Amino acid sequence: MTATRSVLAAQATDFPRWFQDVIAKAELADNGPVRGTMVVRPYGYGIWELLQEAMNRRIKATGARNAYFPLLIPESYLQREAEHVEGFSPELAVVTHAGGKQLEEPAVVRPTSETVVGEYLAKWIQSYRDLPLLLNQWANVVRWELRPRLFLRTTEFLWQEGHTAHVSAADARAYATKILYDVYREVMVDVLAIPVVVGRKTRRERFAGAVNTMTLEAMTRDGKALQMGTSHELGQNFAHAFDIGYLSSEGRRELAWTTSWGSSTRMVGGLIMVHGDDAGLRVPPAVAPVQVVVLAVKDEAIEAAQRIADDLKAVGLRVEVDDRADQPFGRRAVNWELKGVPLRIEIGPRDLAAGNATVVRRLRDSAKTAVALTELTAHAVAALEADQAHLLTEANARQTARITGVSTVEEAIEAAGTGWARIPYDAVGEQGEDRLGESGITVRCLQRRDGSLPVNDDEPDLVAYVARSY
Amino acid sequence: MTATRSVLAAQATDFPRWFQDVIAKAELADNGPVRGTMVVRPYGYGIWELLQEAMNRRIKATGARNAYFPLLIPESYLQREAEHVEGFSPELAVVTHAGGKQLEEPAVVRPTSETVVGEYLAKWIQSYRDLPLLLNQWANVVRWELRPRLFLRTTEFLWQEGHTAHVSAADARAYATKILYDVYREVMVDVLAIPVVVGRKTRRERFAGAVNTMTLEAMTRDGKALQMGTSHELGQNFAHAFDIGYLSSEGRRELAWTTSWGSSTRMVGGLIMVHGDDAGLRVPPAVAPVQVVVLAVKDEAIEAAQRIADDLKAVGLRVEVDDRADQPFGRRAVNWELKGVPLRIEIGPRDLAAGNATVVRRLRDSAKTAVALTELTAHAVAALEADQAHLLTEANARQTARITGVSTVEEAIEAAGTGWARIPYDAVGEQGEDRLGESGITVRCLQRRDGSLPVNDDEPDLVAYVARSY
Repeated sequence: MTATRSVLAAQATDFPRWFQDVIAKAELADNGPVRGTMVVRPYGYGIWELLQEAMNRRIKATGARNAYFPLLIPESYLQREAEHVEGFSPELAVVTHAGGKQLEEPAVVRPTSETVVGEYLAKWIQSYRDLPLLLNQWANVVRWELRPRLFLRTTEFLWQEGHTAHVSAADARAYATKILYDVYREVMVDVLAIPVVVGRKTRRERFAGAVNTMTLEAMTRDGKALQMGTSHELGQNFAHAFDIGYLSSEGRRELAWTTSWGSSTRMVGGLIMVHGDDAGLRVPPAVAPVQVVVLAVKDEAIEAAQRIADDLKAVGLRVEVDDRADQPFGRRAVNWELKGVPLRIEIGPRDLAAGNATVVRRLRDSAKTAVALTELTAHAVAALEADQAHLLTEANARQTARITGVSTVEEAIEAAGTGWARIPYDAVGEQGEDRLGESGITVRCLQRRDGSLPVNDDEPDLVAYVARSY
Repeated sequence: MTATRSVLAAQATDFPRWFQDVIAKAELADNGPVRGTMVVRPYGYGIWELLQEAMNRRIKATGARNAYFPLLIPESYLQREAEHVEGFSPELAVVTHAGGKQLEEPAVVRPTSETVVGEYLAKWIQSYRDLPLLLNQWANVVRWELRPRLFLRTTEFLWQEGHTAHVSAADARAYATKILYDVYREVMVDVLAIPVVVGRKTRRERFAGAVNTMTLEAMTRDGKALQMGTSHELGQNFAHAFDIGYLSSEGRRELAWTTSWGSSTRMVGGLIMVHGDDAGLRVPPAVAPVQVVVLAVKDEAIEAAQRIADDLKAVGLRVEVDDRADQPFGRRAVNWELKGVPLRIEIGPRDLAAGNATVVRRLRDSAKTAVALTELTAHAVAALEADQAHLLTEANARQTARITGVSTVEEAIEAAGTGWARIPYDAVGEQGEDRLGESGITVRCLQRRDGSLPVNDDEPDLVAYVARSY
């Protein structure tokens, strides 16, 4: 354990540095050559693939279908929706030359795809029978970031972006809300084991072009907030700008109501910041590329390690054998801890003689337990299930403990020094948001007192969650 | 059937026009707003997703792992490998402005990733123990095309690109060849039901920067060739340019040997051009987003159609119910033919009364067969399996019939008017390639007489496949 501590900064001392260290040492990602870009290494990409699969399955279950829209968007498209272009202009990367020539119209590398999707929704939708039209795409987007940070805010990132059109505002809202709870919240909680506060963004924090942005906010181990996904009601803003109309069942031409919603590789950043500890990463079994590593202590145990791994694979677990018996055992163990592999099974000649293996549960206390070889598979399956649940319980407890109920903006600013504040929104208001902003603090979201979603910012008795954020 | 013919150009009259028509009418894709780009619609993307899954599984089985490298590459990277920059320069899209400023160094939108991957291989590889390093990525790339064509040659396309590093030329060759046969050929033949001729490219047709390019060529219904995938030995060209070195087991520093290999959305174009007929698309069951459509002829049959669909789904088939009983039956049937759905099950009140359904096999003769409801599921499963095989047999027969053995370049040019020519490479040579080129014809690939891969272009007794191509 001491060996690990020496390669990572301590969380309590320098959390951002710890984050960088973990990403490098666990081989999750590297900085790309163009400033702010990211190379996702196989271990990091393996987590993303499993997460993507879990998300994709749930998105499809809502009735949405995947499609693919072009990376390059004519500059003029963005200008059609006033708030949208204002919000995204400062972050655009622009292709001015291609095929050896200057382009007549520069093309923007998509920062998000509402505009280009809008153009095609308008083309494809004729009648109310074509609605709702529910699309999703998995893609890369580019937003020029001033202060890039791996996984959290990179110039290019991978995400899914959903785009839908509906006959009414109520329909659009119902669908955007379904995505928020049944897809995003479920993936965060059930798959990533990350508790989230679900709420509505204030006017100033809304997506550029939306009439309502709903968000899921997670608490990092240093008490900040991380926006894990958002779902937007776009009203008729994009329908106006791109003329997304349909013939109603009464034969009248109407404008559609659209939504968009996105979640990205930033979720991997959330996973690191919510679950990681001073020994490194801790990966929830549901998205662990390696759920169990079987470590052969000596050469004589390699064959037994292989047999154990085969048994575990046979019940569907993702398993790796570490047979580098010529390398120091301690260094290998520390390396698997760093990578946050949930279960480590150590097997040496002594264990073999006793008919046992040694099991170490990274997501618990990393204590060593001797388990009979005959019971190993059942033990592993049960431990992974229990530890997935344990991670969530633990994160929940941490989050609850660090949310302070306050009643004034001053108290909120103080509370946000170490965690989140929960404050009546009446005590904040737009003016209060200004004051929070001066201290680098924002209203993360609004909820009703019962935790449900407000329908607008002006409802009485709303509660605001206030925090510093990544 | 006549209705379909009226919406599509006939293959025999205007094949390129037929191709465009099918893509539009079957709702596979649209032209994007920036010239040469493509919007892949849900039905087209559904085919791509299934194809991707089949490819991805086989790539992983060879030991490669997925990763993700940045979209934007510093312009200077491309210049490090002389042939590579020469080959790709005319096709580059360049980002010159970002975040509201001119960039100090322009960034190229990746046309392929050998250069940026090379930079990181050099960083990650230390010793022979790190080799082979086997990576793959699923990504979009941009190549500015003069004559874009949907799916076949688009300015942006989706693909997988593999990049590997090895200790020796023999190792690199063995792996590049394994990808060619065990991954690409298997997917083309077993999944897409597309027969391919596998061979070596001549010097002039090689990938820019490769010492050997191996290819799989399919024959389209108009007798042209379509390159379906390529696998390259890069020798030590990129290892030199990016200093990809390793410490050998004897402690000497050596340069690695690298490979790259790619396959793209172009395969969907191949599927259309190899299997489609005058009635539209014909999708192999293995990649059909809808394998069976159950068509309720009248309202009274909708419930029965749902029950049939549920039974089919229960055995793992991908099924859609067409319950638009208020719309003309003929138009609906023609539309499913156009989309190439392998099996159509029609169910009306008369069928119900007789305890039957009518089954139409799109991949055979589209004749109507009455099948007892109790035997429908077993019938469908068997038909899909048989028809997947049938498509391949049919395509194979067409391909064999249209390859003419010739002995002079003049004869090859004539044969290439309607199909492919097979000619001793000694009768062509570099000079012959010039003459073919003047007629818009190329050597697609070289084989030994026994069909195996030559190790270099100068082996005696090679056979050349010669054709016009897309």
